Amino acid sequence: MGATMARLTPISGFPEWLPWQRMIEQRLVDRLRAAFERHGFSPLETRAVEPLDQLLRKGETSKEVYVLRRLQAEPGEEIADDALGLHFDLTVPFARFVLENAGRLQFPFRRYQIQKVWRGERPAAGRYREFCQADIDIVDRETLPAHYEAELPLVLGDALGSLPIPPVGIRANNRKLCEGFYLGLGLDDPAVVLQAVDKLDKIGPQRVAELLAETAQAGEAQIKACLALAGISTGDDSFVPAVRQLGVEHPLLDEGLAELAAVVATAREHAPGLLVADMKIARGLDYYTGTVYEAQLRGFESAGAVCAGGRYDNLATSGTDRYPGIGLSIGVTRILGLLFGAGALALSRQVPTCVFVALPAESDRPAANRIAAALRRRDIPTEVSASPAKYGKQIKVAARRGIPFVWFPGVDGAPDEVKDIRSGEQLVADPECWGPPDDDRYPVVTATTGES
Amino acid sequence: MGATMARLTPISGFPEWLPWQRMIEQRLVDRLRAAFERHGFSPLETRAVEPLDQLLRKGETSKEVYVLRRLQAEPGEEIADDALGLHFDLTVPFARFVLENAGRLQFPFRRYQIQKVWRGERPAAGRYREFCQADIDIVDRETLPAHYEAELPLVLGDALGSLPIPPVGIRANNRKLCEGFYLGLGLDDPAVVLQAVDKLDKIGPQRVAELLAETAQAGEAQIKACLALAGISTGDDSFVPAVRQLGVEHPLLDEGLAELAAVVATAREHAPGLLVADMKIARGLDYYTGTVYEAQLRGFESAGAVCAGGRYDNLATSGTDRYPGIGLSIGVTRILGLLFGAGALALSRQVPTCVFVALPAESDRPAANRIAAALRRRDIPTEVSASPAKYGKQIKVAARRGIPFVWFPGVDGAPDEVKDIRSGEQLVADPECWGPPDDDRYPVVTATTGES
Repeated sequence: MGATMARLTPISGFPEWLPWQRMIEQRLVDRLRAAFERHGFSPLETRAVEPLDQLLRKGETSKEVYVLRRLQAEPGEEIADDALGLHFDLTVPFARFVLENAGRLQFPFRRYQIQKVWRGERPAAGRYREFCQADIDIVDRETLPAHYEAELPLVLGDALGSLPIPPVGIRANNRKLCEGFYLGLGLDDPAVVLQAVDKLDKIGPQRVAELLAETAQAGEAQIKACLALAGISTGDDSFVPAVRQLGVEHPLLDEGLAELAAVVATAREHAPGLLVADMKIARGLDYYTGTVYEAQLRGFESAGAVCAGGRYDNLATSGTDRYPGIGLSIGVTRILGLLFGAGALALSRQVPTCVFVALPAESDRPAANRIAAALRRRDIPTEVSASPAKYGKQIKVAARRGIPFVWFPGVDGAPDEVKDIRSGEQLVADPECWGPPDDDRYPVVTATTGES
Repeated sequence: MGATMARLTPISGFPEWLPWQRMIEQRLVDRLRAAFERHGFSPLETRAVEPLDQLLRKGETSKEVYVLRRLQAEPGEEIADDALGLHFDLTVPFARFVLENAGRLQFPFRRYQIQKVWRGERPAAGRYREFCQADIDIVDRETLPAHYEAELPLVLGDALGSLPIPPVGIRANNRKLCEGFYLGLGLDDPAVVLQAVDKLDKIGPQRVAELLAETAQAGEAQIKACLALAGISTGDDSFVPAVRQLGVEHPLLDEGLAELAAVVATAREHAPGLLVADMKIARGLDYYTGTVYEAQLRGFESAGAVCAGGRYDNLATSGTDRYPGIGLSIGVTRILGLLFGAGALALSRQVPTCVFVALPAESDRPAANRIAAALRRRDIPTEVSASPAKYGKQIKVAARRGIPFVWFPGVDGAPDEVKDIRSGEQLVADPECWGPPDDDRYPVVTATTGES
């Protein structure tokens, strides 16, 4: 067995947290869940796999799918029509689920989904191949009112605002606005223009200009106008006159401007400072049709977006049935990776255990078990010592594990006592009624550096 | 797109729950988590994949692994030494994690892990290819005291006892007991005997006898003794004299009898009725070395085990480092599948939403949003109507979704009112202080048929 163990190293792109980090992750995810449910979102979990042809309907990521093959597959089985791939996001599976179960759902359907996704990327530093996303989406039949485009960032703000992490800044744009602008400029293929503009942060304006000339056959004035549009970003509706000033006209542009203005106005009223309009935000995925969003963690802007989403009118469509939707996705693993890396999250202790019951002798184990059972009945996390030893040694074991209280069973008719090993205070106590201070019952997550 | 949608049918073996069922699953898993943490177990989540050679170290299930291949893999990449497969249980990844991170863990290490696992089985009715397991394990360095073999069933009993499901019955056996018995009988390959006995429930004593003759070269008296041992099952330690009466002697048998007697005695003291000793329990996996367990749901015995586990001394071993462990695994998907199938679990409503804020006119949306925000600040799940309509129509929408309360914003200086749409009672209310009855705040899971 020694040989196989020689390769026990992490697999690039498949992060694993230590138990105390997993405790933090769970507690943060619990708060996201609570926030989503406060806003009336129902939970959903879809299977990890989709038929390959479903996954490949979405252009840009088709290269990143993991395909499954049974180890004992017959020849040819792996390339069958119904080959299965691991999902690379939660939107495609959600759209499929809605179509498959439309008759059993109530619309508008508000759902959240917190799950792992996989991308068959080449291994590279900082590139996740398995990660957790927390998605919220609203879909309706036939039409989806625009007010949901204003509501979703508020849900995100409420959810992330309930976590001990730096605040997020959301940047929003609107596909109709951009597409109308490009069409009004005389550029016939807005999708190609968007794909070039989407690279602005990565490759800079000079290379985007070259790309636009190359892939969209844009002339100098058109390129200049595209880059000017991408440069507009405002926290209020002053982006509207700024865009107007560029002198482009198109009905789709008007629609987009009005929708984005409504999103900004709603955010300003209910969550000042949360959201800005930013015409640079393109989001490469071609299924977006209205508002698009991106969010960054304050202090970690250079790491890129930690949330993203937008409106999609045509993703869940089957024959004459249409379920337009809007969604936002939180990169849970990405956020944790950044904050763990910066040492910005701490837990008040390393284990769930609040009370460590010391063991005078192995024959006292049944009595120690009864004490532990009494404490657990009142929701106090408790474990019993692995073995009897001098009390000093058992206290050290508890301290090393970060357990705040040690319980000493009374021997020969003496009462039980409990010691707070941080303060050294030791008191007579009854397992049927003693309780720890509120802050000590469960491990507590705190931010350790604020906004870094 | 119509064409691809024609195949929108469930994939055999990959179950998906509806949102209300997912809500039940989450709430039950929350209670399992709370129970495990009450007993001092820390959470862990491992990556979904392991190197194929790690997965194949375990004999019997090697045929059921899903191997991953990048869609754009270069030729030969998929058969590389470091090919990745989806894990088929949580024990093998846990053992690997312990070896990889031993220096950063405190021992004895108590961990729980609730995750999906995958088995590349051929599609078949009732056979899951993706399912959720909830595992608890304790590992220590070098040696692991036997009292943990008595503790684990108690944790399982506490955890499952906190759910609104039929009680479980745990059946325990001990590998040393069986192996010692077989060796004492003169059967040299106890593993082969165990594998035959493991099939007793499936194929019956006649075929097991044939198998024993065939694979273990057992003679008639030996077969008779093996079947006699497998027939012993007692709720107290009377199995000890019953086994002794079969006249077989071996030091390993003595050890096993003593260990199993301790497990039974501890269970009888702390959780009467939870556990019986049953010499038929073999558990096919060859890594078990001490106590083995299986548990069934009362009323669903014919569906087989819903929990299983045991002690393994050699799974996490690397050179001179040894981390003996013991674990129990709860088949979460299996339990839910049985209970959903029997209609034995219900939720008090279909959505998390407690209050539906009606909308007099679209222009009242900001005011309605403020009401919703005030209710949510006090943890009352709230959604705002998708569109304005006559109140009668909006009440119907809320009722169809199962939302208990409809909130009517006050218009023209009139106060807000809230209606319980089940009783029809309508009261003046202030969003800053009104609250629902405790049972209405969140959806509540109940058992609908008791022990079926």
